[in-house]
Amino acid sequence: MIEAAQTLDGWYVLHDFRSIDWASWKLISAEERQETIDEFIKYLEKINEADIAKTGSHAFYSIVGQKADFVLMTLRETMEELQELETEFNKLAIAEFTIPSYSYVSVVELSNYLAGKESDEDPYQNPHVRSRLYPELPRWNHICFYPMDKRRQEGANWYMLPMDERKELMRSHGLIGRSYAGKVKQIISGSVGFDDHEWGVTLFAEDVLQFKKLIYEMRFDEVSARYAEFGAFFVGNILDNEKLVKLLSV
Amino acid sequence: MIEAAQTLDGWYVLHDFRSIDWASWKLISAEERQETIDEFIKYLEKINEADIAKTGSHAFYSIVGQKADFVLMTLRETMEELQELETEFNKLAIAEFTIPSYSYVSVVELSNYLAGKESDEDPYQNPHVRSRLYPELPRWNHICFYPMDKRRQEGANWYMLPMDERKELMRSHGLIGRSYAGKVKQIISGSVGFDDHEWGVTLFAEDVLQFKKLIYEMRFDEVSARYAEFGAFFVGNILDNEKLVKLLSV
Amino acid sequence: MIEAAQTLDGWYVLHDFRSIDWASWKLISAEERQETIDEFIKYLEKINEADIAKTGSHAFYSIVGQKADFVLMTLRETMEELQELETEFNKLAIAEFTIPSYSYVSVVELSNYLAGKESDEDPYQNPHVRSRLYPELPRWNHICFYPMDKRRQEGANWYMLPMDERKELMRSHGLIGRSYAGKVKQIISGSVGFDDHEWGVTLFAEDVLQFKKLIYEMRFDEVSARYAEFGAFFVGNILDNEKLVKLLSV
Amino acid sequence: MIEAAQTLDGWYVLHDFRSIDWASWKLISAEERQETIDEFIKYLEKINEADIAKTGSHAFYSIVGQKADFVLMTLRETMEELQELETEFNKLAIAEFTIPSYSYVSVVELSNYLAGKESDEDPYQNPHVRSRLYPELPRWNHICFYPMDKRRQEGANWYMLPMDERKELMRSHGLIGRSYAGKVKQIISGSVGFDDHEWGVTLFAEDVLQFKKLIYEMRFDEVSARYAEFGAFFVGNILDNEKLVKLLSV
Amino acid sequence: MIEAAQTLDGWYVLHDFRSIDWASWKLISAEERQETIDEFIKYLEKINEADIAKTGSHAFYSIVGQKADFVLMTLRETMEELQELETEFNKLAIAEFTIPSYSYVSVVELSNYLAGKESDEDPYQNPHVRSRLYPELPRWNHICFYPMDKRRQEGANWYMLPMDERKELMRSHGLIGRSYAGKVKQIISGSVGFDDHEWGVTLFAEDVLQFKKLIYEMRFDEVSARYAEFGAFFVGNILDNEKLVKLLSV
Repeated sequence: MIEAAQTLDGWYVLHDFRSIDWASWKLISAEERQETIDEFIKYLEKINEADIAKTGSHAFYSIVGQKADFVLMTLRETMEELQELETEFNKLAIAEFTIPSYSYVSVVELSNYLAGKESDEDPYQNPHVRSRLYPELPRWNHICFYPMDKRRQEGANWYMLPMDERKELMRSHGLIGRSYAGKVKQIISGSVGFDDHEWGVTLFAEDVLQFKKLIYEMRFDEVSARYAEFGAFFVGNILDNEKLVKLLSV
Repeated sequence: MIEAAQTLDGWYVLHDFRSIDWASWKLISAEERQETIDEFIKYLEKINEADIAKTGSHAFYSIVGQKADFVLMTLRETMEELQELETEFNKLAIAEFTIPSYSYVSVVELSNYLAGKESDEDPYQNPHVRSRLYPELPRWNHICFYPMDKRRQEGANWYMLPMDERKELMRSHGLIGRSYAGKVKQIISGSVGFDDHEWGVTLFAEDVLQFKKLIYEMRFDEVSARYAEFGAFFVGNILDNEKLVKLLSV
Repeated sequence: MIEAAQTLDGWYVLHDFRSIDWASWKLISAEERQETIDEFIKYLEKINEADIAKTGSHAFYSIVGQKADFVLMTLRETMEELQELETEFNKLAIAEFTIPSYSYVSVVELSNYLAGKESDEDPYQNPHVRSRLYPELPRWNHICFYPMDKRRQEGANWYMLPMDERKELMRSHGLIGRSYAGKVKQIISGSVGFDDHEWGVTLFAEDVLQFKKLIYEMRFDEVSARYAEFGAFFVGNILDNEKLVKLLSV
Repeated sequence: MIEAAQTLDGWYVLHDFRSIDWASWKLISAEERQETIDEFIKYLEKINEADIAKTGSHAFYSIVGQKADFVLMTLRETMEELQELETEFNKLAIAEFTIPSYSYVSVVELSNYLAGKESDEDPYQNPHVRSRLYPELPRWNHICFYPMDKRRQEGANWYMLPMDERKELMRSHGLIGRSYAGKVKQIISGSVGFDDHEWGVTLFAEDVLQFKKLIYEMRFDEVSARYAEFGAFFVGNILDNEKLVKLLSV
Repeated sequence: MIEAAQTLDGWYVLHDFRSIDWASWKLISAEERQETIDEFIKYLEKINEADIAKTGSHAFYSIVGQKADFVLMTLRETMEELQELETEFNKLAIAEFTIPSYSYVSVVELSNYLAGKESDEDPYQNPHVRSRLYPELPRWNHICFYPMDKRRQEGANWYMLPMDERKELMRSHGLIGRSYAGKVKQIISGSVGFDDHEWGVTLFAEDVLQFKKLIYEMRFDEVSARYAEFGAFFVGNILDNEKLVKLLSV
């Protein structure tokens, strides 16, 4: 029997990717567009209240290419809140001018591979752990998101490796991540049972090239090289109210 | 010749996932919306009569993310009844404001891997077996659904393993499931010949995190690690009349 | 050089799966709906003339779940006739309220794996063979359809096996099928060069559970366990004029 | 370093598959339909001028099943001409009543596996070679089209085989094809760099069953059994002006 | 620990593939069409200003077959500029008559496999390197685009090969490319972290057949034969203002 990895779990996460239906957006009057934008910004400000109260966090970025026009990533204490935010968005006027293009459901996760020595301490009370499970998302220039799995193939089956081997592999993997400290902020969220892959990876950087450098370097690391399967990749640029108004001005 | 597993089969199951077409839903008058909701609730109450009569069961949950807005899972004594319920839904006014997003056809199943010692008893008369084949679905906070297959690969072919080996593997697999008793209720339904995968797995929990814990722990168990292939995962929150009215209020 | 299997080929087969566009169906007047149904039934009766004349056969079933609302399976002497029936359907008023969801093109096939001892007899004149190549489809309660391939993988390559080994494997496979005689009627149709898989399998049963029992039992047989790849599965309930009227009444 | 196969390349080929939007086709007046058909036939006659001038060729067939309603296959001297024919079609009135369903871009190809002994002769001047690179497509009853690749797997990597082995394998493969001479006419077109597979295969036959017999027999030949990957298959019946008018008459 | 390849990174690249909605394009007045074309050409001329200022580059080609009607490939100094160009396009009148069909996000890349001996020189100041990282795209007749990955399979895992072996393999691979100098211009762009594959390959040629010859020859080279996975292929013909006007004239 293989020992499973233990996880610490924080906020629930919804990545909600949408495309803008430009043709119908242009059809309505300038006044209606203004009202629609105002209502959307009010919604975003309401979402931000959780960031201020530290009961949640969010990120809002445009997406480059045709996969989507923007992503709204929300972190909350319960799955119900994620659902409510999603439904609330769907009831906004702006929703009538957007097309859902992709979404991902997960929960912020720390695995015990990276855990220090055991102690009697409740890890959920450890401030360092808490800041990772309940992260304040940065307002950096760029976002990168992708879901991934660990392989379960003959000859490369992550889930059949002994705990010690997985721990050693993850340690070396983590070293690469740590060498990008200050350049790339990384949020790992677990999605086993919640969505089609096992994890979601959300990266933030001021310099978008750091995403490529980090992920490419990791690809030569055994954990990625032998055991990782990747889903779709999304890359984007930060949006604030001003940029949103500019994006939507036609 | 490999000995096939015998199964006991109970109620037929339809998982019917739908997305709401919010734009057209907002277009109609408040009065029409009210009538549409009233008719929908009457339909759900009619469905519930089988739950009361113990001639069937159902579950109704919202789905988190863009895959669907809700799932209606119905269990009935015949395939014809499932079809009739589906057609009846399609004729409701609410159907005009929903888009089919996924469905799954199966039958509640108990495999003989977990069977006790043989006896002359008709298992279909055993009250314990009956309660599993004709389950009363719980009204717990969360639902998780995914279809799955057992692998038939060179080097990992479930269907070429001797019965004893499969039995031993399933026993160990079952132990994990049982350790979540009271936390996760699990309905296994077989779909060979009925839908694209071999089984559907429906889980219920009060604490949504238990889905992730259970499935992740199982992934290190050989049955999952070596022999399981998973389809799409759906996770949701319970709906009752009040929540449905709130969901649909615009 | 591997000896290819010889086949006997009978009627050409089109499986035509359609979904009903309920929203637009409800939009038209009761009178128009009645005319549309009458015309559809007349078309089905015309199709049935070939059944009576034994120049073809057909089956008409509703489909459970969202994959389709019904399937019309037609068997005819030429590919041109299949095309004409399809075009004729497309010109019916009912076609405007249906959405094509899947189709499959094949020809009823008997392979020589199951052939008896050779003789000078023309097999196409053998009454037993003829009844299988030009089958009268039963009016049983349920239909099951799925396309499939034989694997061509390293280590499990059906097409590299010697004829004798394939013959032996198919014989054992056929025994399972025969043990369901009277319970499941099976039509095998070849589709190499006609559609995306190599065969289509159409099963009929009075008891829908027999599909699952038969296919699940076969899955432990080496032909399926090692060499079969399956496409999508469809399951349905029989339709007659009365049931069709009921299905379409809104 | 593996020796690449040399190819001789002839006319560029576009397979353009379209479905008819029957609902909107029925909506317009009989007069408009007549004008639309007349214009379409004029376009087809213009295309045929290249057949007469032997500067190109074309084939026009209906397709059985839901994948498409017809395919127009055009062969021309340049990629630009293919593009122009496609654009010209898109500007026809009939295009408004069709939906693009699949297309394939390639160039007629002869590989040197089948070449005779080397000589100083310019193969492009050899009449036999010319008739294969610049073929006059037959007006036979049936068409079959499918794209394909040669495998590049561990243990079955076509592109790692020595030239001699590929030549021997292709020779044996070619023998099967030749045994269908007079029954099946075969056009091989290369699409590396032009479309998603490496080759397109277009077959013509008076008897549609010959497609199945040929491809099925080849499947037991090592080139197909071990090294071939197939895409979608399309099968159809010949169209001429009269049949087109009948197809479109509603 | 496998040594990762170092890369030099130049301009960011967006390939934006669009299909024309011919039916709605024909619906508007000749005057509106003219205004729409004029505005589109003005946009293209604005894009071209970066080509002149050498702060970016672009290519504009029609695409053969149904995958798209044209591709606009833009190279810019930042990801933000790519997004702005894309949004600006979406706000043009022409965008209302186009349907997004595919896009790809990447950055022009030189890998160190091909690097000469190390020196103290800043490679970004080397004029030869600069001309490759910030390329002036040629105005050649044809374009070919495809995304690709290096395999990470058991037995063929590019990312587990020692640096020396990868370098040697890439050297031999590069020799083929170089033998097409003057015939095919090749832009390699990295997309790890930016899009679904690891690289995008864009080729330009006066003679479209050179794409097939180059890629087919490379397929026999071990880097492609054993380690490459290819995505979709697009091929097209150059567009200038005159050709665009002709393409859009109905």
